Amino acid sequence: MRNLTMMTDLYQLTMMYGYYKCGMRDNIATFDMFYRSKGDSTHYAIMAGVEQLMEYIDNLHFDDDDIEYLRGLNIFDEDFLTELRNFKFHGDIQAVPEGTIVFSHEPLIRVTAPIFEAQLIETALLTIINHQTLIATKASRVVQAAEGGTIMEFGLRRAQGPDAGIYGARAAIIGGCAGTSNVLTGQMYDMPAMGTHAHSWVMSFPTELDAFRKYAELFPTSCLLLVDTYDTLRSGVPNAITVFRELRERGYEPKGIRLDSGDLAYLSREARKMLDEAGFPNAIICASGDLDENLIRDLKLQGAAIDTWGVGTKLITSEDCPSLGGVYKLSAEYVDGQVVPKMKISENEVKITNPGVKKLYRIYDKDGMAVADLIALEHEHYDTSKPLTIYDPVNTWKSMTLTNYTMKELQVPLFRNGERVYQSPSLMEIQQHCREELSTFWDQYKRLLNPHRYKVDLSDSLWMLKNSMLQQLRRG
Amino acid sequence: MRNLTMMTDLYQLTMMYGYYKCGMRDNIATFDMFYRSKGDSTHYAIMAGVEQLMEYIDNLHFDDDDIEYLRGLNIFDEDFLTELRNFKFHGDIQAVPEGTIVFSHEPLIRVTAPIFEAQLIETALLTIINHQTLIATKASRVVQAAEGGTIMEFGLRRAQGPDAGIYGARAAIIGGCAGTSNVLTGQMYDMPAMGTHAHSWVMSFPTELDAFRKYAELFPTSCLLLVDTYDTLRSGVPNAITVFRELRERGYEPKGIRLDSGDLAYLSREARKMLDEAGFPNAIICASGDLDENLIRDLKLQGAAIDTWGVGTKLITSEDCPSLGGVYKLSAEYVDGQVVPKMKISENEVKITNPGVKKLYRIYDKDGMAVADLIALEHEHYDTSKPLTIYDPVNTWKSMTLTNYTMKELQVPLFRNGERVYQSPSLMEIQQHCREELSTFWDQYKRLLNPHRYKVDLSDSLWMLKNSMLQQLRRG
Repeated sequence: MRNLTMMTDLYQLTMMYGYYKCGMRDNIATFDMFYRSKGDSTHYAIMAGVEQLMEYIDNLHFDDDDIEYLRGLNIFDEDFLTELRNFKFHGDIQAVPEGTIVFSHEPLIRVTAPIFEAQLIETALLTIINHQTLIATKASRVVQAAEGGTIMEFGLRRAQGPDAGIYGARAAIIGGCAGTSNVLTGQMYDMPAMGTHAHSWVMSFPTELDAFRKYAELFPTSCLLLVDTYDTLRSGVPNAITVFRELRERGYEPKGIRLDSGDLAYLSREARKMLDEAGFPNAIICASGDLDENLIRDLKLQGAAIDTWGVGTKLITSEDCPSLGGVYKLSAEYVDGQVVPKMKISENEVKITNPGVKKLYRIYDKDGMAVADLIALEHEHYDTSKPLTIYDPVNTWKSMTLTNYTMKELQVPLFRNGERVYQSPSLMEIQQHCREELSTFWDQYKRLLNPHRYKVDLSDSLWMLKNSMLQQLRRG
Repeated sequence: MRNLTMMTDLYQLTMMYGYYKCGMRDNIATFDMFYRSKGDSTHYAIMAGVEQLMEYIDNLHFDDDDIEYLRGLNIFDEDFLTELRNFKFHGDIQAVPEGTIVFSHEPLIRVTAPIFEAQLIETALLTIINHQTLIATKASRVVQAAEGGTIMEFGLRRAQGPDAGIYGARAAIIGGCAGTSNVLTGQMYDMPAMGTHAHSWVMSFPTELDAFRKYAELFPTSCLLLVDTYDTLRSGVPNAITVFRELRERGYEPKGIRLDSGDLAYLSREARKMLDEAGFPNAIICASGDLDENLIRDLKLQGAAIDTWGVGTKLITSEDCPSLGGVYKLSAEYVDGQVVPKMKISENEVKITNPGVKKLYRIYDKDGMAVADLIALEHEHYDTSKPLTIYDPVNTWKSMTLTNYTMKELQVPLFRNGERVYQSPSLMEIQQHCREELSTFWDQYKRLLNPHRYKVDLSDSLWMLKNSMLQQLRRG
């Protein structure tokens, strides 16, 4: 297991030194992780990366080599370095489980720990959650566009480094991809990797037909042939059909063909006709090449006869929006056992945070469909037998009163006093959870372009706390 | 050292199985790695990732667990799995050294090895080189925009996973960043990480002044204060000046201030005036917040008084172009000791490859400025005492004849017969090499928008080979 303890911003260590020297080392603080906006047209996001966050926390420790490097910076004293050498995380962490649908400004993770410890983990926590949540969300959009077609994650070679390929593939599966070409991800998360052959296979034989024949001989039960090395309709598809006929004579049915260039709408329709006429209506057509949710939707509108979509670069990098702006902000401190809410104000009003120790609820109607989310303070309790009035977060004069509803708290405990109290579900269980989550949201919230805004309300108590603190800070 | 052997696309393994079963395991093949276009307005790229590629090759091996996973896929036989268990790389690899300026379609890496081995390494080679070359190139653009100002890499929390943060920071330094906030990258590449404090530091004290005072007390020689937590000009800068005066009384000079929100052009100019009037003309102003090369250039045009730029998200993700389209294509096979050139044709003409075993030259004029690059066949030799005619790659009727020129071969050997023959320079040496490289290119090739096209010519022999193969493939 990799130790990522040193993968942090230097300022976390300088602040830790500060807290240590000021005798504030053990002051308890609460931080929230949330994102402000995705910067693209998506409204929802799919939570992902919690399992890797837990592995990171489990492994937190500074080795002698790490201490040696930090000593060499000549900014820390020996007492502090000894403190680091003995570092252990003692805090509480809660998080929304992976695969859950979440929205901007919602507290996705809550860390309550000595500030010395809570500060250290900020950077890696953000790196891990920002990345996987971004890719799971992108995958969910691509899967939606395919309207039941299969999406394969193929992007490893264009990923932003090994981890982006490995954990990006994991996140893509959470978001609904049926599989990945990445063998290591398959191995790590106990599922079969998928794939066929490349152009170089075809080019390594005297003719395309020789290459296909040999492939069919070796993989009779999974014979998927790449048909665009020379000329898709004049050479590739006819040669594939020849080989499929030979395969059938040997008692096997072919898997299908893959198109990787040219106009996929036209080529797939023509190839479909040729396969059907040759007696292979069950041979699938797989397509790849610069695909994303927009192109898939357009190709489908133009009648593309594509069953499986291999999506690479634009999924694994979330090309149109390559970062999730997740942040980690101080929301409370504990002084003499009392909670002191904290908030950051800013020149930029969207950067104003929600103060206090908070929890996140999802409210469902009597049919089990999500109606709104509610951010409340920890001490608030709700009685679902009584009507609940929720407000539009922007236009607070718009409100609705619910009866016959249910509420679910979304965060679950991961660590208590530094001990792990949560076991991550398997990757397939997380994917299933995500699928179920999506089914509780009306289509208007999931639309790819300009989705309807899902209500994320602040409780009355939180709203009043925030406003009174804003007034006070502006006065002071 | 991490073993990334399994980090490959499954189709590499199915093709290896195919070559093995066809008795082609030891057929020697040559592959070239190159990129087709960057998809943004950049013409040049900065080569990066070679050191990590070598580490990957050095570590290539399948463990028992890996074999066990592959056995479970039920597509490979036991002989092949034994072959994998004993896998070792025996080939030759050449590459353009890190920090070198390169252009689209140039062979950046050349692998000559048994096809069984050359095929396995495709995916990881591309993942590593595509990522680091992308980020080094982006960094080079950002550094250029700052016109001598200092660029700090601050993006770890928004990187696409840990490696994207760690190796992205490495690549950013190659491209010219002065440093990174990432402590692990600092440790791995033997340079000091950099940073100051966050908003949470300020929020953890009763007042901003208390927080600044404490910070100055702890870090008297590197006192850089973040001034935008509450109100930059009414609170942050005045409080910083108070603390700077106290610091000076104790015999220390302050480092400066950091702005992280608001209008950086206006705030920096006002802050500069306030610092100057208070007697701190040497206190620097550092700015951060959604910066990239375009915003830095615009802020400078508007007279922003910013000395150091902390660049995060948009650099570490190369936001406007989050992938480099690097590919790895078969260019030759060896049959009975003879080279058989190979090329891929495509419906899409830019996807047509350059056949044969090739080398890459850079041609310099008498003043040492780069004039053009030349892709030639391995067996070609050039005598620089004789005139050389080079052709425009697109408009081949445009030519120029050079006298009084020098030529440099750009690829260097990394591995011979599987043994490493190259030692990577230090990160600072690579950065220095990159700086020297840039100085040999005229400004028109480095312009951020619409740069002039730098000539990348094919030698006469290569041009004739390519054309005759194209004719032949089209006829066939």
